[in-house]
Amino acid sequence: MKTISGLSNPTVKYLRSLRDKKHRRREGVFLAEGLRLLTDARESGRVPQMLAMAEGRDPHPLLDALIAAVEDAGGDVLAMSEAALSKITGKDNPQAVCGVFPEFDTSLERLDRNAAPLFLAAQALRDPGNLGTMLRTADAVGAGGLVLIDDCADPFSVEAVRASMGAIFTVPLAMARWEEFLPWLRGGTGQLVAASLRDAVDYRGAPYAAPCFLLVGNESQGLPEDYEMACDLRVTIPMLGRADSLNAAVAGAVLAYEALAALA
Amino acid sequence: MKTISGLSNPTVKYLRSLRDKKHRRREGVFLAEGLRLLTDARESGRVPQMLAMAEGRDPHPLLDALIAAVEDAGGDVLAMSEAALSKITGKDNPQAVCGVFPEFDTSLERLDRNAAPLFLAAQALRDPGNLGTMLRTADAVGAGGLVLIDDCADPFSVEAVRASMGAIFTVPLAMARWEEFLPWLRGGTGQLVAASLRDAVDYRGAPYAAPCFLLVGNESQGLPEDYEMACDLRVTIPMLGRADSLNAAVAGAVLAYEALAALA
Repeated sequence: MKTISGLSNPTVKYLRSLRDKKHRRREGVFLAEGLRLLTDARESGRVPQMLAMAEGRDPHPLLDALIAAVEDAGGDVLAMSEAALSKITGKDNPQAVCGVFPEFDTSLERLDRNAAPLFLAAQALRDPGNLGTMLRTADAVGAGGLVLIDDCADPFSVEAVRASMGAIFTVPLAMARWEEFLPWLRGGTGQLVAASLRDAVDYRGAPYAAPCFLLVGNESQGLPEDYEMACDLRVTIPMLGRADSLNAAVAGAVLAYEALAALA
Repeated sequence: MKTISGLSNPTVKYLRSLRDKKHRRREGVFLAEGLRLLTDARESGRVPQMLAMAEGRDPHPLLDALIAAVEDAGGDVLAMSEAALSKITGKDNPQAVCGVFPEFDTSLERLDRNAAPLFLAAQALRDPGNLGTMLRTADAVGAGGLVLIDDCADPFSVEAVRASMGAIFTVPLAMARWEEFLPWLRGGTGQLVAASLRDAVDYRGAPYAAPCFLLVGNESQGLPEDYEMACDLRVTIPMLGRADSLNAAVAGAVLAYEALAALA
């Protein structure tokens, strides 16, 4: 373990800079925060290359295990003042701990369409909280992965990683343009199902077939019409109130649990 | 319409101060932003007592209708610089518009348990985005209301109002301590169903009965055990991955759509 002092220490500045997408991407790494999330990562075989914590932090067996794993893997464990840690995490929590992980490969080839009956996909999803929540749901339904289509929020942002509650480490994640995704999907078995308001059947009792790719669209626009028309099935969730749509992550989860039961 | 100039104008300061919970509560009002949301409010019979917009904003028939409704009701319509409006809304959007509404009555007496087969309830829900999303879901499933139990996030915060996508204006909202809620519920018909990990039956095929009150707990703690035990039914959603829970608003929605289908 190394001890770092001062708020303007270059390592503190480096860690702080990783909250910014531009710096994060240039470095090819991302930040994850919290002992529970870092423990989930460790138990999934992902160990941070750098671990930052406050000096004099209360001992904890999970923290000890994490420190040992990072040191065994040749990574750096850094102790710093609470003020320096707060500068990195943006939170006043002396119990905080954060780790730097290398970005994952997010090519479509990461997905194994035989790995699970269900996959989730989102197109132009803009809210990092919704994105992380979809990852969390994908984990919960045992999905074979989440595909992010076109320009989505950054799945490696601090907000998305936090909302994923560790699922960023466990759910295979792929990112692709629609023009890449559709040929990839059509190159093998796979049913593409759109969450839709147009020409759609009720989501309950719809003919889901494995491997089933459930696709939800942008928070305010939904899916482009031509994307929906390229899908094998369009399903809709009944809306009994004034609003015409659900939160995108909620819609994905309601569909995912229905399809899961249908495919079981 | 009045025109206001300067960033330090007292009305601008007043509006800005309403983003802060303490000031908001003292004034007994809340802010809602966006033409679509304010139109939903108007169409639901809620007209802001004060409407703020940028000078020289592009005309729009929905904005005209909103201005007319506010003026007819004796409210104030204020035009100001884009900079002043940004100070209030926190956004650089010259198309922005925001309104000040009186807080609603949130007593349990607002709820009519005969109004719908389904009601949602949340205990100690801390995230305003989750709270707003639950309101949006409550609207979508035609729920008779949302009950906020114990110390929840502020449903009238800008974040919750925004996430509700207008459902703050359409879904009856009640706030109560558990010690008030339980006797109220038991004073009439009503099945209380806990989203649970303990001693619970599968949420699919569970014996839901109208009026059904679906209760979800705090984001990190879930429901206190004694609350769960006071419920008539405990249901659980299968978790096939590493995580042991879903996002609270997601869990509420998955349960709500299942119960809705069962009660139909």
